Amino acid sequence: MDRGRLEAFSDGVFAVAITLLVIDLAIPEPGHGALGGQLASHWPSFAAYAVSFFTIGIIWVNHHNLVRNFTAVDRPLLFLNLLLLFFVVTIPFATATMAAYLRDGGADAPLAAVIYQGVLLGMSLAFGTLFWWSIRHRYLAIPLTSAAARTALIRFGIGNLAYAAAIGVAYLSAPASLLVSALVGLYYMFEHTPTSGSEPAGGETAESEPPAGRRETADG
Amino acid sequence: MDRGRLEAFSDGVFAVAITLLVIDLAIPEPGHGALGGQLASHWPSFAAYAVSFFTIGIIWVNHHNLVRNFTAVDRPLLFLNLLLLFFVVTIPFATATMAAYLRDGGADAPLAAVIYQGVLLGMSLAFGTLFWWSIRHRYLAIPLTSAAARTALIRFGIGNLAYAAAIGVAYLSAPASLLVSALVGLYYMFEHTPTSGSEPAGGETAESEPPAGRRETADG
Amino acid sequence: MDRGRLEAFSDGVFAVAITLLVIDLAIPEPGHGALGGQLASHWPSFAAYAVSFFTIGIIWVNHHNLVRNFTAVDRPLLFLNLLLLFFVVTIPFATATMAAYLRDGGADAPLAAVIYQGVLLGMSLAFGTLFWWSIRHRYLAIPLTSAAARTALIRFGIGNLAYAAAIGVAYLSAPASLLVSALVGLYYMFEHTPTSGSEPAGGETAESEPPAGRRETADG
Amino acid sequence: MDRGRLEAFSDGVFAVAITLLVIDLAIPEPGHGALGGQLASHWPSFAAYAVSFFTIGIIWVNHHNLVRNFTAVDRPLLFLNLLLLFFVVTIPFATATMAAYLRDGGADAPLAAVIYQGVLLGMSLAFGTLFWWSIRHRYLAIPLTSAAARTALIRFGIGNLAYAAAIGVAYLSAPASLLVSALVGLYYMFEHTPTSGSEPAGGETAESEPPAGRRETADG
Repeated sequence: MDRGRLEAFSDGVFAVAITLLVIDLAIPEPGHGALGGQLASHWPSFAAYAVSFFTIGIIWVNHHNLVRNFTAVDRPLLFLNLLLLFFVVTIPFATATMAAYLRDGGADAPLAAVIYQGVLLGMSLAFGTLFWWSIRHRYLAIPLTSAAARTALIRFGIGNLAYAAAIGVAYLSAPASLLVSALVGLYYMFEHTPTSGSEPAGGETAESEPPAGRRETADG
Repeated sequence: MDRGRLEAFSDGVFAVAITLLVIDLAIPEPGHGALGGQLASHWPSFAAYAVSFFTIGIIWVNHHNLVRNFTAVDRPLLFLNLLLLFFVVTIPFATATMAAYLRDGGADAPLAAVIYQGVLLGMSLAFGTLFWWSIRHRYLAIPLTSAAARTALIRFGIGNLAYAAAIGVAYLSAPASLLVSALVGLYYMFEHTPTSGSEPAGGETAESEPPAGRRETADG
Repeated sequence: MDRGRLEAFSDGVFAVAITLLVIDLAIPEPGHGALGGQLASHWPSFAAYAVSFFTIGIIWVNHHNLVRNFTAVDRPLLFLNLLLLFFVVTIPFATATMAAYLRDGGADAPLAAVIYQGVLLGMSLAFGTLFWWSIRHRYLAIPLTSAAARTALIRFGIGNLAYAAAIGVAYLSAPASLLVSALVGLYYMFEHTPTSGSEPAGGETAESEPPAGRRETADG
Repeated sequence: MDRGRLEAFSDGVFAVAITLLVIDLAIPEPGHGALGGQLASHWPSFAAYAVSFFTIGIIWVNHHNLVRNFTAVDRPLLFLNLLLLFFVVTIPFATATMAAYLRDGGADAPLAAVIYQGVLLGMSLAFGTLFWWSIRHRYLAIPLTSAAARTALIRFGIGNLAYAAAIGVAYLSAPASLLVSALVGLYYMFEHTPTSGSEPAGGETAESEPPAGRRETADG
């Protein structure tokens, strides 16, 4: 199956991007104050690390669920996937920048948070486009009904609105916007209630999971 | 089989995390004293590098043995796996911090060692939960007997107690706690005596290895 | 199939190289001027990041399309692939160097851009050699007609000439040469008109794509 | 086949280690002298980068050829493989250290080169042990004749002697020892004349290659 290498390359990029986040956890060498104080003053790095880690992780789970339904992969799909990966790879930069300016607490913290939320929004939009393309060109092994596709598009809208709202929140308070990202992540981690329509009976195993499109659409 | 991408992503994260450890081996540029002296004074970095490398390696071997018995992968399992990877990815940070403070030898070395042992304990607990979930939801191709499951849980308890004890040791002596981690790793590297119960006849090849749960459980 | 590990290793290298690009996006810690100004003055880093990301991405797509037609992999092919990966891995260094000197704007910017374009040319030549070797030794599942092979070689020539021209442009203007690279990338992203000859009927799915060699040859 | 994940994890580690080499290519920011002079004075970094890249690449090719003959993977084999990866992961550190001290040209350059050659020797010995274990426990799909196994062991001996000799050379001249490593790499890149004994007829495709053990043994 041709989608194998798409998955392998994407998994590699997801894995490297999620692991590179740890580089920005570094605290100063000993001799710049007590370790306890250093750790406390670096809380934005730790909080941003955890939020970015689980956000990339959730996107990977959803990517996994979407792509394993693909029956074919064409050239535009490869490039849409590349666009998604572009935003994923940019997350460690956005995370480090936001954490540094949150720690600093100066007037630029909101702008740094806007950049972070903007990268997450870009990732969400790219994921939505990848999903929309795969429906439109009928690449999913289990096609969606019109109703299910509409539900999916509405959920995408909600997910993207949440990230857009976080950009607005960032202007008011950078830490609050980080909290919004964490809550969006938490919501989509637990949001897996089966939905109506063309859904198979459903069970506990992955084999009988509902098609990715219906469950995963808004998480991006 | 659906577990393929879980393995591919996990392998990627394990591979990147284990390789990123090398970044913290860096010694100062020439001109800051003789190379021999530099290497000698950086012994905590080398020791911590070796311990962390083999600890991640052992966890990978055990993860490999556990996951290849999975007959299905559900959403909670993906997130439990993500939690395990979260601690794995944090190891290079914990390793570098502990090594830097061990080298410094100041009053903060115990706290740095506590953080390191805490990350290892978190990894061990996450692995245990992943194992427990896979038993409870009957995802293993070769189910465990109640007796074998009990043995496995006892071994988990011992493994987690060892890491918890290392946290205590760290308060007394940071280098001693690193030694404890090394010994735990060594023990589980050689600890592969077959155990009682539902065990197949056993042989030298992987195909006839006992189910992962019984052999691997406490290593996490 | 023996080409599986060639793909896995190559995918790993592509994935790490494309993700390492993000390390050079780092801007100075807070306190060195307003964040907006920092971002604006770092435009060469962002532009070079985007160009290098999509250039590596396109090469990956083309590598993917070429290699999945391989019916066998011999030792020279493994080493030609290694040569291609050598240039791919060097891209993050070339990107960071060019971006730093473009930002500096001094007399060395053209030389830095020449190095960048030289690495891209090396990658393009290595990809061409890999392709040529696979035709000559008949490793493609769908062999090319002589006419198609000739067309492919001409396209390779054009692609390599474009990168060689970019080296010339770099001596005149470093930013202009970056623009050339971006345009070459854009062109090959959209350049997928089917060509003459031994082409199968073609459709939208990857399974019925024309053989990689005819479509991908000049992109390297 | 159980060896799949051994390959996937190893490929990941090889891919990350080979790509991390690029991090040490970094030259100083603009303003520390002309770029041309910087590049010239950093020749040890570029030379060491190329030698280490192709050494890891050759080891990967040989690892690939050895492991695809495995019919089973046991726990000791996983740990021997881990030991090999330990030395592979250490190569970027050894490369950077040697390059820095070669550039410095001080009295510590020989020691730095000894460390580099020592890591390569460690890798070679670990590869030899992995090979020896796989023969002894009859894990190869195409078993070796006693004569072929003897030839293989002799070649291992030669390979390890070459790296041991390079350690001696390093004490006399650090650059000369780097040249020795480059020549060893070049030799094994081209050394693929079929050998006597249990060899299949041989052809150009990978499928008819002689078993890895006979051709690859000494390269480690």
